[in-house]
Amino acid sequence: MFSNTILPELRSRWSKIQSKINETEADGCLIGGNVNLFYLANRIFSGYCYFANESEPLFFVKRPVNLQGDNVIYIRKPEDIPALLAERGIALPKTLLLETDELSYNEIARLQTAFSATKLLNATTLLRAVRTIKSDYEIELLRHSGKIHADCYREIPKLYRSGMTDIDFSIEIEKLFRQKGSLGLFRVFGNSMEIFMGSILAGKNAEAASPYDFAMGGEGIHPSLPVGCNGTKLTEGMAVMVDMGGTFTGYITDMTRIFSVGKLTELAYKAHQVSIEIHREIESIAKPGVATADLYQIALLKAEKSGLSDYFMGYKQQAGFVGHGVGIEINESPVLAPRSKEILTEGHVFALEPKFVIPGTGAVGIENTFVVNKNSVENLTDLEEEIISL
Amino acid sequence: MFSNTILPELRSRWSKIQSKINETEADGCLIGGNVNLFYLANRIFSGYCYFANESEPLFFVKRPVNLQGDNVIYIRKPEDIPALLAERGIALPKTLLLETDELSYNEIARLQTAFSATKLLNATTLLRAVRTIKSDYEIELLRHSGKIHADCYREIPKLYRSGMTDIDFSIEIEKLFRQKGSLGLFRVFGNSMEIFMGSILAGKNAEAASPYDFAMGGEGIHPSLPVGCNGTKLTEGMAVMVDMGGTFTGYITDMTRIFSVGKLTELAYKAHQVSIEIHREIESIAKPGVATADLYQIALLKAEKSGLSDYFMGYKQQAGFVGHGVGIEINESPVLAPRSKEILTEGHVFALEPKFVIPGTGAVGIENTFVVNKNSVENLTDLEEEIISL
Repeated sequence: MFSNTILPELRSRWSKIQSKINETEADGCLIGGNVNLFYLANRIFSGYCYFANESEPLFFVKRPVNLQGDNVIYIRKPEDIPALLAERGIALPKTLLLETDELSYNEIARLQTAFSATKLLNATTLLRAVRTIKSDYEIELLRHSGKIHADCYREIPKLYRSGMTDIDFSIEIEKLFRQKGSLGLFRVFGNSMEIFMGSILAGKNAEAASPYDFAMGGEGIHPSLPVGCNGTKLTEGMAVMVDMGGTFTGYITDMTRIFSVGKLTELAYKAHQVSIEIHREIESIAKPGVATADLYQIALLKAEKSGLSDYFMGYKQQAGFVGHGVGIEINESPVLAPRSKEILTEGHVFALEPKFVIPGTGAVGIENTFVVNKNSVENLTDLEEEIISL
Repeated sequence: MFSNTILPELRSRWSKIQSKINETEADGCLIGGNVNLFYLANRIFSGYCYFANESEPLFFVKRPVNLQGDNVIYIRKPEDIPALLAERGIALPKTLLLETDELSYNEIARLQTAFSATKLLNATTLLRAVRTIKSDYEIELLRHSGKIHADCYREIPKLYRSGMTDIDFSIEIEKLFRQKGSLGLFRVFGNSMEIFMGSILAGKNAEAASPYDFAMGGEGIHPSLPVGCNGTKLTEGMAVMVDMGGTFTGYITDMTRIFSVGKLTELAYKAHQVSIEIHREIESIAKPGVATADLYQIALLKAEKSGLSDYFMGYKQQAGFVGHGVGIEINESPVLAPRSKEILTEGHVFALEPKFVIPGTGAVGIENTFVVNKNSVENLTDLEEEIISL
C-alpha cells in the first residue's frame, strides 16, 4: 500500500498522531474521513485507519479491492473490526477518538456502538492540530502548487477577450488550470461551504452577499450555488478579482490577483495599494511566536488608518478574518481573526487575503500563500501584485 | 425571500414534510444542511429551517445579510433560536428531528443541547423520502437539464483530436458543459464519495478499482482523487466512456455514452448492445408499483444469459447496483440493487446504468435518466445510444 519513498513521511505523521493520542485519555483512535485518510495513507480508500497503541496503525479497507501491505486488513463493515483486533490481541478501547466534527452523527454513533466505547473524544481537533504543521515533504508540494498557481495567473491576461462575461472568463481560466494539472476538486472543511474551482468577481457582483464563509461573496450562477461569477459583462472601469484554488498536488495554495478592464477609480487603486502594504507589513513581522490575532489587527488598523474600513473584507457583509491556514483543505488552521488564539509556528502555511470591495468597481487586493519558516515567512505564490490591465 | 412564482411549489414541499413529521412522535424539525435548505427555500443560505407545527416553517438566517420575509429571523448562532421561538409562543420540542445522517456528530449534539431535546429522530431519512418524489416543477427542471445534457453529448465528437489523452478530452468536455451552463459543483450524498464534474474512462483505466461507490472506477489523476481519467492516451481500439453530471439546474441528470477510437472488439460491441437491450426491457416494464430490486435482477439476468457476468458493473471490482435516484444530489433514492425494498412511484427519477468493463478495451454500456410517470417511464436523456466512433 505504501511505497518506500513515502513510508518515512507517513511514519513521521503516524508518530506525531500517536504522541498526541498519548496526551489524551483515549486508548484508541479510528479515522474514516477522506481528508484524514489521505493524510495517513497518501491515498484515498474506503475504510478506516486505527491507532491502538505505540505500534503502527492498522488499515481496515473496504475498497478498492487491490491494496496490499502488512497493516492492510480487508473488512466489509466497521462492525468487523473488533473481532479482527481481538485476533491480534488488541483490546477494545474504553475511550475512543473519532472524527466528531467530520463524520455524521449516525456514523459516529454506529462506530461507538461497534467498539463498545464508553467515552468519545474529538479526533477532528487532534488531526487538524497535527495537520496544521506541515512537514518538509508537504511544504515542497505546496511550493510546487504555488509555482504552477503563479504560472497560471501569469497567463490569465491572454485569455481575455473584449465582450466576455465573468463566466466566459472563468471558463477559460478553469480550462487553463486543468491543463496545468488542477485536480478540479476543492476540499473545504465542514458541510456548509461549497465552491467550484474558485471565484471570479467582477464589478458590482463583488457587493453581493453570499451565505458562505468565504472572504468574498458574489451572486453565483444559480441560487443553489450562490458564490462567485454571475454573468456580469466585463466592461470599462471594472475590477475583476481572480481567486482560484491551486489544487495541483493534493495540497492547496490560495492566491488572488486583480485584473482591470481599462482604468479603475483612484479609490480602487488606493485600496489595492493598502492590501499590498498590509502584505509587506505582515511579511516583515510574521515568524514563529507571533499571534495570528495580532496579524489580523495589523490589517484592520491599516484599513482604518487609510479610511477604508467600510470596504474592508466586503461592503454590505464583511468577513471576520483576513487569512486562513491551507493544506489538504482550503480552510485549515491557523485563522487570522480577531479572537484567534493561535500562534504562528514553523511549518504553518497560511493564505493572507486583505481585500476591499469598492462599490461600483469591484473587489481589489491580493492574496498570497505563505509558509512559516524558522525566522520568517516565505511567499509560495510569488507574482506581480499590481492590478493588471486586461 | 420567496418569489410569488416559487411560493406555491415551496408550500407544497413544506406541507409534505409537515405531514411526514406528523407521522412521527417529533414535535419539531430543524434543518441545517445545504441540500435540504435548497429544497426548502429554493436557495442556499447559512442557517436553519424550523418546522414546529401545522404553520409554515421559520427560517433562521445567519448569512447572507439581506434576506427578507415574514418567516425570516436573523440569528448569530443556533443557541439564539429557543428564545426566539418562546417570543412567538412556540414551545421547545421534546423529540426533535435533525439531519443525523448529514450533520456532524458535534453539530447534532450542539443543536440537541440548544433545544434541550430529550430524543432525536432522523430528519435525513424523512427529507430524502420526501425529496425522492419529484414535483412537476422539479421534473421540468430535470427535463431541461436532460435536454442540455444530451445537447452537450451530441457535440462531444467535435472535441476529439487525434493524439489526445483522456484528460485532454475531459478538459474539452468540461469546458463545453460549463459553456452550456453547468454549475460545475456535483452534489453527492454522504462524506465518502468525491468526484469532479464527472468521469471519462478510456481503455484499461476502466479496470482500475476505485475506493468510491460509483458504478465505475478509474485510477484518477492523483491518489487524493482516485476516480476517472488518468492520462491514458486515446488510441485505436479503445472505448472511451463519458459519464458527466448534468448539473445545469440545481437538479442533476446522469447520462453515459460510449465513444470509440476506431473499431472495438466484437465482445465490446456485444456487451454494449446488451446494455441497450437492458434499457429497452426495463423501460418496457418500469412503472409505478414495480420493485427496483426486480429491475436489478432483470439487468443481472440479461448479463448472465449473455455470458457477460464477469464484466458486469466492473471487472476486478463490481458495483452492487445498476441504477440510482437523482435530484439535487447524484445519489438519491430509489436504488436499483438486489436488496432494495423500494417500489417505483410516480415522480421517482432514476438513472439506469448497466455497464460492462471489457479488459483491454474499456467500459461500454449506456446510462439514461428516467422519470416515472403515471403508467410508464420517460427518458430525459434522449440521444443516439450506439457506440459513436470518434
